Amino acid sequence: MDGSFLVGGTKVSRPETFQASDPATGALLATEFSVSSAADVARACALADEALDSFRELAPEDRATFLETVASQIEQLGDTLIERAHAESGLTEARLNGERGRTCGQLRLFARVVRDGYWAGASIDPALPERTPLPRSDLRLRRIPVGPVAVFGASNFPLAFSVAGGDTASAWAAGCPVVVKGHPAHPGTSLLVGDAIRRAVEICGLHEGVFSLLQGASNNLGTSLVSNPHIKAVGFTGSRAGGLALLEIASTRPEPIPVFAEMSSVNPVILFPQALEARGAALGAAFVASLTMGSGQFCTNPGILLAVEGEGLDAFVGAAVAAIEGAQPQVMLTSAIHANFDRGVAALENHESVRLLARGAVPTGCNRGQAALFETSGAEFLKDYALGHEIFGAASLLVRCADLAEIASVIEVMEGQLTATLQIDAGDHEAARDLMPLLERKVGRILANGWPTGVEVCNAMVHGGPFPATSDSRTTSVGATAIDRFLRPVCYQDLPDEILPAVLRDANPLNMPRLREGTPD
Amino acid sequence: MDGSFLVGGTKVSRPETFQASDPATGALLATEFSVSSAADVARACALADEALDSFRELAPEDRATFLETVASQIEQLGDTLIERAHAESGLTEARLNGERGRTCGQLRLFARVVRDGYWAGASIDPALPERTPLPRSDLRLRRIPVGPVAVFGASNFPLAFSVAGGDTASAWAAGCPVVVKGHPAHPGTSLLVGDAIRRAVEICGLHEGVFSLLQGASNNLGTSLVSNPHIKAVGFTGSRAGGLALLEIASTRPEPIPVFAEMSSVNPVILFPQALEARGAALGAAFVASLTMGSGQFCTNPGILLAVEGEGLDAFVGAAVAAIEGAQPQVMLTSAIHANFDRGVAALENHESVRLLARGAVPTGCNRGQAALFETSGAEFLKDYALGHEIFGAASLLVRCADLAEIASVIEVMEGQLTATLQIDAGDHEAARDLMPLLERKVGRILANGWPTGVEVCNAMVHGGPFPATSDSRTTSVGATAIDRFLRPVCYQDLPDEILPAVLRDANPLNMPRLREGTPD
Repeated sequence: MDGSFLVGGTKVSRPETFQASDPATGALLATEFSVSSAADVARACALADEALDSFRELAPEDRATFLETVASQIEQLGDTLIERAHAESGLTEARLNGERGRTCGQLRLFARVVRDGYWAGASIDPALPERTPLPRSDLRLRRIPVGPVAVFGASNFPLAFSVAGGDTASAWAAGCPVVVKGHPAHPGTSLLVGDAIRRAVEICGLHEGVFSLLQGASNNLGTSLVSNPHIKAVGFTGSRAGGLALLEIASTRPEPIPVFAEMSSVNPVILFPQALEARGAALGAAFVASLTMGSGQFCTNPGILLAVEGEGLDAFVGAAVAAIEGAQPQVMLTSAIHANFDRGVAALENHESVRLLARGAVPTGCNRGQAALFETSGAEFLKDYALGHEIFGAASLLVRCADLAEIASVIEVMEGQLTATLQIDAGDHEAARDLMPLLERKVGRILANGWPTGVEVCNAMVHGGPFPATSDSRTTSVGATAIDRFLRPVCYQDLPDEILPAVLRDANPLNMPRLREGTPD
Repeated sequence: MDGSFLVGGTKVSRPETFQASDPATGALLATEFSVSSAADVARACALADEALDSFRELAPEDRATFLETVASQIEQLGDTLIERAHAESGLTEARLNGERGRTCGQLRLFARVVRDGYWAGASIDPALPERTPLPRSDLRLRRIPVGPVAVFGASNFPLAFSVAGGDTASAWAAGCPVVVKGHPAHPGTSLLVGDAIRRAVEICGLHEGVFSLLQGASNNLGTSLVSNPHIKAVGFTGSRAGGLALLEIASTRPEPIPVFAEMSSVNPVILFPQALEARGAALGAAFVASLTMGSGQFCTNPGILLAVEGEGLDAFVGAAVAAIEGAQPQVMLTSAIHANFDRGVAALENHESVRLLARGAVPTGCNRGQAALFETSGAEFLKDYALGHEIFGAASLLVRCADLAEIASVIEVMEGQLTATLQIDAGDHEAARDLMPLLERKVGRILANGWPTGVEVCNAMVHGGPFPATSDSRTTSVGATAIDRFLRPVCYQDLPDEILPAVLRDANPLNMPRLREGTPD
């Protein structure tokens, strides 16, 4: 691995470099990665702009084939990719194998979305020359890509939310060239995937500007990228501070642009009385499995538990405490994330309204996260709802409530979330239904009798939610409708057929789904 | 008319008042209108929040009936409404009759949109319990309203972009309660329409918080409204300065919210060589008809003409000059708008690169706009593209270009626009097609052989465009898809059927259109 980055199809090296480290040992990994300069950002964005018109007018079949070619090129990297991602992230090879499957599956899902053609939103209202008092023109609508998109890779999914992750796949599906800023924690993983993409661009004969990969650890790089006038939208997954900083840059540009930032969430889990009574202990064990998976480094990690006092809850707590105490420390992604986790846990430990229930096994070695479970009361939470702030990692807070009304009050003061989880038995259904309107206002996904970790990539997924879970609650960053973030409508009025885009010509040569007078044609 | 405003169903009076004036005479109109206080804003927004859950879960048929009832209540105001709107705006009664028809037609269009049900975006991916390596959960998506919406009425459409205009109609269609800040130039018109809505809310038995009308001329009122934590989105049509001020407030709230602001546009019209040669004089006369209609007070007014030098252009200019010189002065909406128009015209007149081609007849009386046509060259425009800034009113600038390439260069430096118009004959089609990718990047609607004024309310309309035409190019403020601005997706995972919202239950009791595995069920 030579440590270059990619400006279109060109591998570029620069004198300034940085290195990744193995979080499991703290040791620096050998390759020195070039840091992209402001001039590299400018060149990558200009190339993306040059690529836009040809890329956006590709036939759906050709854009779909490109997405599939990226997937197969990533698969062809084989164990090299998994080994590098393991060294840079500390995630297990089994997890990374699964994540690669998800990443390639996601690219293939968007290939299908592109072929299906609903994304174009084609809609035709034919002329009504006889209408009185005024005739109606012929009006046709299609959606086109917003333009080049900047994507910021996340640390916690070095494949699925990184260089060829959901933001990139959905932006390409919409027809947007993508300039990625790789996450500095996994530059080698980023470069391997970037190089696979570079080959796919070449194999498919596309304009090289369809993809660039910039690397570096400084905030300046991100600032130049989001400020570049060719960039028309931003995809980001990461911290609240990071997302808000990008929003600020994007909204104060001469031409403001949308930022789709997925930021923070504590994902309340509500344990209903009947479910607790029937299976409190089993729920406690299952909860800890979800909490500690991947060292708890998921945006959908269950960080808050809400339950009504009682015997069922005692059984839950007993099982959860036992499971936490048996939880083996796992390597966290970076030393900064590990230090933040320890700080957040210490703050809860020292909070006068919070009691420690259990810690995981004491870590030995570098950057191991020690799981933690705390408890407080609903009344105490309502006095200081900063207790509901995210601690990224395997830490959770049980809020013991007097009754279901107090649970509702606690949810009422919480900020926007990605998910809410209901543990319910038949006898809880009525109470759960009463809570639905409130939950719908607060979250993007409501699930029953499962755990929020594990986000299916499909048509009906919503991985989004009210602020600060995301910066735009009207969107999702996972699933087929993620493509909508990167499209804008254009109307064509009385244009001669030969000037119309193919999707709107009378003969419908691309055989795309269309509306006629607002209903399917 | 008693000069109150409406907080839900309650008519409220306050000691502080303001009056409207008749722009045709400058005289104050009799009624003293109460100014809403910060406490009134808070109460209206709290009521809107209270109304949200019942309003959003109305059966589509009931929400559609409400929209239709508003339309019929407005129609029942009869001539009273037209006379008051005429006195407050100076617009002709014929124009206002047409605008009332458009306003009521728009409400009925959204009633049909609500009944059709596509807005809910219902999508079902059934469980796949046998899938390997992991089973898939049952995942169902629907869209719900974002929450209460603040709407700012525009001065130039006292009916169609005001209290019961497109923003209000589309927000209600989505299920959002609406708090309107009436435009201070037409408070009587606003109150008449507001009172019609109040009656419709009562007739339909809805929660009173579905609608409030606040009145007043100060910016503080708008600031309190956009800052209120119950408000989740803003619709605005007006000036660039006004729109940007609201964006700033909305993006720096503790919870940022989207602002859909339609702001400014000069709507370039491109006169292609063959069209000019065939019908230069006829185009000149037709252009002036579009330019001077309604004293040019449309966001789609043709403010910039682009053409290649030649005999066809000479014929166009000759006819346009004659028509402008015969154009009778018309009353403008307010003295402030009239003064701004005169300032903008004077600035062009004094610009060293601009020559005056013609002025309309000299006005007598108050607030009459005197039409103006200027010219410059493509080379001069490229040196100072501030020449492309909007002058709200009947003023236009002809940019004489050396060739089609220079026309493209001029468009390249222009900001985002609502529309671009092509005047083309068969011999121009190839050149027009070459220009399409550039035009698509710049505008929301491209039309041929018509004029941009006149915005059809239909399924395929886009009244939007890249910044600064609007604050969010992914949306439209006119037409059926305007509803999309006010909806956000929620996913339901493995929820028991009895807890699911009706639109997603297995039996589909509302008979709504749904996707299954991403394609129509």
